[in-house]
Amino acid sequence: MVDYIGVERIQSLMSRVGVARLLGGLVQEIEADFLRWGEFEKSARHAIHSAVGVIELMPTSDGQLYAFKYVNGHPKNTAEGLLTVTAFGVLADVNTGYPLLLSEMTYATALRTAATSALAARALARPSCTSMALIGNGAQSEFQAIAFHALLGIRELRLFDVDPRATDKLARNLAAQRLADLRLVRCASAAEAARGADIVTTVTADKRNAVILAADSIAPGMHINALGGDCPGKTELHADILRRSDARVFVEFEPQARIEGEIQQLEPAFAVTELCEVLAGRARGRTSREDVTIFDSVGFALEDFSTLRYLHRLNREQGGARHAIDLVPDLADPKDLFSGRTATPERVRA
Amino acid sequence: MVDYIGVERIQSLMSRVGVARLLGGLVQEIEADFLRWGEFEKSARHAIHSAVGVIELMPTSDGQLYAFKYVNGHPKNTAEGLLTVTAFGVLADVNTGYPLLLSEMTYATALRTAATSALAARALARPSCTSMALIGNGAQSEFQAIAFHALLGIRELRLFDVDPRATDKLARNLAAQRLADLRLVRCASAAEAARGADIVTTVTADKRNAVILAADSIAPGMHINALGGDCPGKTELHADILRRSDARVFVEFEPQARIEGEIQQLEPAFAVTELCEVLAGRARGRTSREDVTIFDSVGFALEDFSTLRYLHRLNREQGGARHAIDLVPDLADPKDLFSGRTATPERVRA
Repeated sequence: MVDYIGVERIQSLMSRVGVARLLGGLVQEIEADFLRWGEFEKSARHAIHSAVGVIELMPTSDGQLYAFKYVNGHPKNTAEGLLTVTAFGVLADVNTGYPLLLSEMTYATALRTAATSALAARALARPSCTSMALIGNGAQSEFQAIAFHALLGIRELRLFDVDPRATDKLARNLAAQRLADLRLVRCASAAEAARGADIVTTVTADKRNAVILAADSIAPGMHINALGGDCPGKTELHADILRRSDARVFVEFEPQARIEGEIQQLEPAFAVTELCEVLAGRARGRTSREDVTIFDSVGFALEDFSTLRYLHRLNREQGGARHAIDLVPDLADPKDLFSGRTATPERVRA
Repeated sequence: MVDYIGVERIQSLMSRVGVARLLGGLVQEIEADFLRWGEFEKSARHAIHSAVGVIELMPTSDGQLYAFKYVNGHPKNTAEGLLTVTAFGVLADVNTGYPLLLSEMTYATALRTAATSALAARALARPSCTSMALIGNGAQSEFQAIAFHALLGIRELRLFDVDPRATDKLARNLAAQRLADLRLVRCASAAEAARGADIVTTVTADKRNAVILAADSIAPGMHINALGGDCPGKTELHADILRRSDARVFVEFEPQARIEGEIQQLEPAFAVTELCEVLAGRARGRTSREDVTIFDSVGFALEDFSTLRYLHRLNREQGGARHAIDLVPDLADPKDLFSGRTATPERVRA
């Protein structure tokens, strides 16, 4: 039997444990794995593109555990009542090759992306940031808001989305979370949202090269958490922002970021620093209060690996061993596929 | 909700539909897809190797549907009571990126491998074959036996395994299948098994370069169905068999076979023919009754794609829409992950 975390179960874990505490735990897991970066087998994700979207597989392993995530990106889906991004993933034991956990990752991806954003901002943004612009108020925005409130001390969120209903929805969901001392400021443009913010998070979903943020919206000292540029042909920042003389650009895994990140707009020799180098103290993050630090995040398999390992443990701690599916045979004789024909229950154990 | 075929369900489908009929259906599906080979996005599988095994992802798409399989290979597992190979796979809709079906593929891989073997043998072996050597009597051997009995008219199986208990097990399971007019001949060596056979199937599991079959065991006119050589460092045939002047070597997808197949032992320029070319009538298979045809099969993602599509339909025809898991959210508002917190049932619908 393989542990199973479906949508209802992850929602239940989010309720029981609390989203902020879950994010805090995830930050620790992801940071610990970034600190042993060299132990991971890394590759750019496997992507199959179509006219309307992309389907990707993101595998990695540290030699003990193996994980992969399946994730799609279909911006046109929302018009049909479907999600732009859905995902699921599997954690497996390298020693046996057996899967240990199948988990939904639509929620888990939003969680791990927010955790990674917070981890990077903690390492790169000025200390004592209190105000963040949140540009793009779609499905992932609540998770970013909760993470930066809980883990960075953000107390003012400056919101903008081309669709005002998205901002309504975000405000409603954040109100339900009852985050202490959080002030929401609705803005009429991305530029207005960025004005005076310590951190600017861009998390939009258009599958094209868009300019969500113009160069003159960025002030010295800002940290930019750029999430939406994450596949070829999909960027959010004006290239001039990246080229500022005071800008320093950080990425997760350079070979992948060159293909998928904001830096796909730039020449291949443009200097970037991998986040793991900063976390490990081998490279400097911010060099002064005036630097513009840019986390050009595309999402890397290691973050999903950390998340699946964390969820596997958390789920069991929370009584999740009851939830399992018969994805692999449990045979009386492992060389005889006819030996266990009735051994495994088909339905989730309950 | 995503359709789900677990171990119990595939066993139930095998019982209800019958393994031979299932294999016959699969051959049709796989052949149809081989005939439109050019429509598929093809890549070598993504493999992560460890000292004791390998974990692989095998994705492909025809632009309408997307499929991938997760499969491990751990020969040492059987000593621990576990299977050498387990697998599962997902079929997805390219238009939305949503998964349609999650299926176990430990059984399905054995089925599709046997179906592909039968498809290739039908195109490459001499007509009216009646005798087959089956070397390696492990978990996949029953499926090969049933496929060649039902689809090629094999009436004598010449069995050999280094472990006589494996042959006992195969004989017992085939007896339970009550295959008409099938005679089993137990042999003391691979050479004895091959003697007089029209077709020689090698399906052993050692993860190393082994010589399961020596060159002098092969007679003119034979068809060799070589399954066990399927990853770097794992081969079964002596290279001299491949080099015979009367031998013609056929593969599924040449770039992958060069890395994983028996032909990894040979120089990169060694001439091979892709099976799809023979099926489509663009290349010759056997040119005379004396040719030795060799199907150097490693298993290709297209075969899993065909299998998942077939199982998706078959499962629904057999009332399988009742079996589903909440792997993706079903939200009131697709831009709001907080909008459907209790909408989806966690357990399998029943």
